[in-house]
Amino acid sequence: MINCKTNQFLEDLHHYVPGQSIADIKQKYQLNQVVKLASNENPLGPSVVLDEIKESIDAERYPDTTGLALRQALASQLTISPDNIVCGNGSDELMTMLSQVFLNSTKSIVTADCTFSVYEFVASTCGAKTIKVPLQDNTYDLGAILDAVDDTTSLVFIANPNNPTGTLCSHNEIELFLEKLPSNVVLVLDEAYIEFANESVRPLASQLLHKYPNLIVLRTFSKLYGLAAYRLGYAMANAELIQLINKVKPPFNVNSMAYEAGVKALEKSEFIKKSLHVNEKGKQRLYQFFNELELNYEASEANFIYVELNRSARDFCNECLKHGLILRPLTSFGRPNAIRVTIGTESDLDFFETVFKSVWKV
Amino acid sequence: MINCKTNQFLEDLHHYVPGQSIADIKQKYQLNQVVKLASNENPLGPSVVLDEIKESIDAERYPDTTGLALRQALASQLTISPDNIVCGNGSDELMTMLSQVFLNSTKSIVTADCTFSVYEFVASTCGAKTIKVPLQDNTYDLGAILDAVDDTTSLVFIANPNNPTGTLCSHNEIELFLEKLPSNVVLVLDEAYIEFANESVRPLASQLLHKYPNLIVLRTFSKLYGLAAYRLGYAMANAELIQLINKVKPPFNVNSMAYEAGVKALEKSEFIKKSLHVNEKGKQRLYQFFNELELNYEASEANFIYVELNRSARDFCNECLKHGLILRPLTSFGRPNAIRVTIGTESDLDFFETVFKSVWKV
Repeated sequence: MINCKTNQFLEDLHHYVPGQSIADIKQKYQLNQVVKLASNENPLGPSVVLDEIKESIDAERYPDTTGLALRQALASQLTISPDNIVCGNGSDELMTMLSQVFLNSTKSIVTADCTFSVYEFVASTCGAKTIKVPLQDNTYDLGAILDAVDDTTSLVFIANPNNPTGTLCSHNEIELFLEKLPSNVVLVLDEAYIEFANESVRPLASQLLHKYPNLIVLRTFSKLYGLAAYRLGYAMANAELIQLINKVKPPFNVNSMAYEAGVKALEKSEFIKKSLHVNEKGKQRLYQFFNELELNYEASEANFIYVELNRSARDFCNECLKHGLILRPLTSFGRPNAIRVTIGTESDLDFFETVFKSVWKV
Repeated sequence: MINCKTNQFLEDLHHYVPGQSIADIKQKYQLNQVVKLASNENPLGPSVVLDEIKESIDAERYPDTTGLALRQALASQLTISPDNIVCGNGSDELMTMLSQVFLNSTKSIVTADCTFSVYEFVASTCGAKTIKVPLQDNTYDLGAILDAVDDTTSLVFIANPNNPTGTLCSHNEIELFLEKLPSNVVLVLDEAYIEFANESVRPLASQLLHKYPNLIVLRTFSKLYGLAAYRLGYAMANAELIQLINKVKPPFNVNSMAYEAGVKALEKSEFIKKSLHVNEKGKQRLYQFFNELELNYEASEANFIYVELNRSARDFCNECLKHGLILRPLTSFGRPNAIRVTIGTESDLDFFETVFKSVWKV
């Protein structure tokens, strides 16, 4: 029995519940075909394969500390400076680093009550409190979030589009929010899915960050670019805020393959176009499918759809698993009767519709 | 100007100084040949190349959360259980997780005054104090470390072999230390270089951890296995302590390539044998070289040698850089007149001796 005193807040820590893996479900139910629409991965596969980068990797060498080549490529695409960018081992790690810079047991964060759970997780690892503001019409209620900000608030986390509801706050809404947000509170705008959102409405991060030194925008290569296995994310902000993160950044936090693949991925305009096209087509098809079943869903600005089943999502998803379909019940998000479906390819959705219908009717 | 209040301890944070890269030095000094003996990487290259693992990587999928296959392979090799193991994004990340579990601004760590700087770094990111005990004869002074432990101490960090001096505490010394260490203090035994150390003397971690629930041993694939670019380390401890780390472990902290390569690397007995042989041969050659120059060095149990120059190491290393030789001055370790030389291949050492001699004489 270990009797070293651990940090007290560990006891309240809610761990993230990951999606189940295809291999596990194949083995468990002895299935040949399993379709996973549970983790919002790119159904077309990765934008970059290992063959494209293997020549440039010195696997025995430590990675570049700051990922300069990737920061330069990103900077030129985003028309900002490399000094406005820091890379992370997935955007999750950037959230951890933000918590190390700004949070402790006397601080708190404000976010929504039904959103990505890692915000609360990283706050908890520092002993900070999480204030959860209810969504309004499945959308971040920016007014109520402002009201919830108090003297202890250091960070506000907004997932935009929101995971799991797929709803978006527009450029104007975010700018208005930043105008009203006390300047000693940092807005962490998590844009993991932003590339899927309506271009005419979504925030222009690169414009906003020159105006608001308390804004930091997080992006990932795990979704549109299909590189979840590599672990690569980045943050954009005022150079001063980036410097603060660099203070706590571990020296070799991102692996060399991720840096190389990231640079290559930015050049894959055809892959990106195709991914967006497949997503749009699949979205319309799923809307129609849920309409036919008279199920309530949320119009999505991302690569997944939030659907209300009016029955136990856990039970429904467990039944689907037996047929080789992995979906995400939103029980851990506080919505026990709702699921999140990643938008798949045409053949993924053929399979999805068949399994869904048969389980739905049982 | 950002006016969000950051954690105070950020101001005292000393950042890790990484070794310079071959590409940078080639470009800076317009050189064709550059030899890097500064970061204790494997001079034979990686034990596993990307071609060997590419078929098993679904790059668009998130990695396995806990790296079960690798933990199983390690467990069978170490004759412990997979529940005694947790993997990290390099062993650095395991140090960060330990700090999240045990440290805060009322706590402290104890370590040596001339050792791997990441111990102090991770303590600082939690606001914890670092008590530094002077080395004795370039070796961890275990008695003095015990004396330095007080009511605020949560963690003791021992690099074994020590980086940068290459000295080893034996199995018996570590066991005696654990006998005397208060059971509410955790010993973090960093065995990054242990595979290079004398087998008959070095600690048998797997034996000790069943007896001492307050022992945690860190290992890495970055050194002997030549996989620094992948970022992969692991911790071994009592299952209860591993569970505490799992509480703060981010869900997808290790990339899929690292997990796959780790499993493959454990099978490379020929590569390992050859690496150890090259290291032993190079070590003897370097001893002789330093003897001829009448330089004091420390007998090494690792893949590097600590050498005292009796002149500015920074200046000497800067001169060597101009000739394409990257060495590590130990200025940031508090030894401004000493360097650390990674033991290279025969041709690396030919180059090393030529450059070293010519700069030494100037």
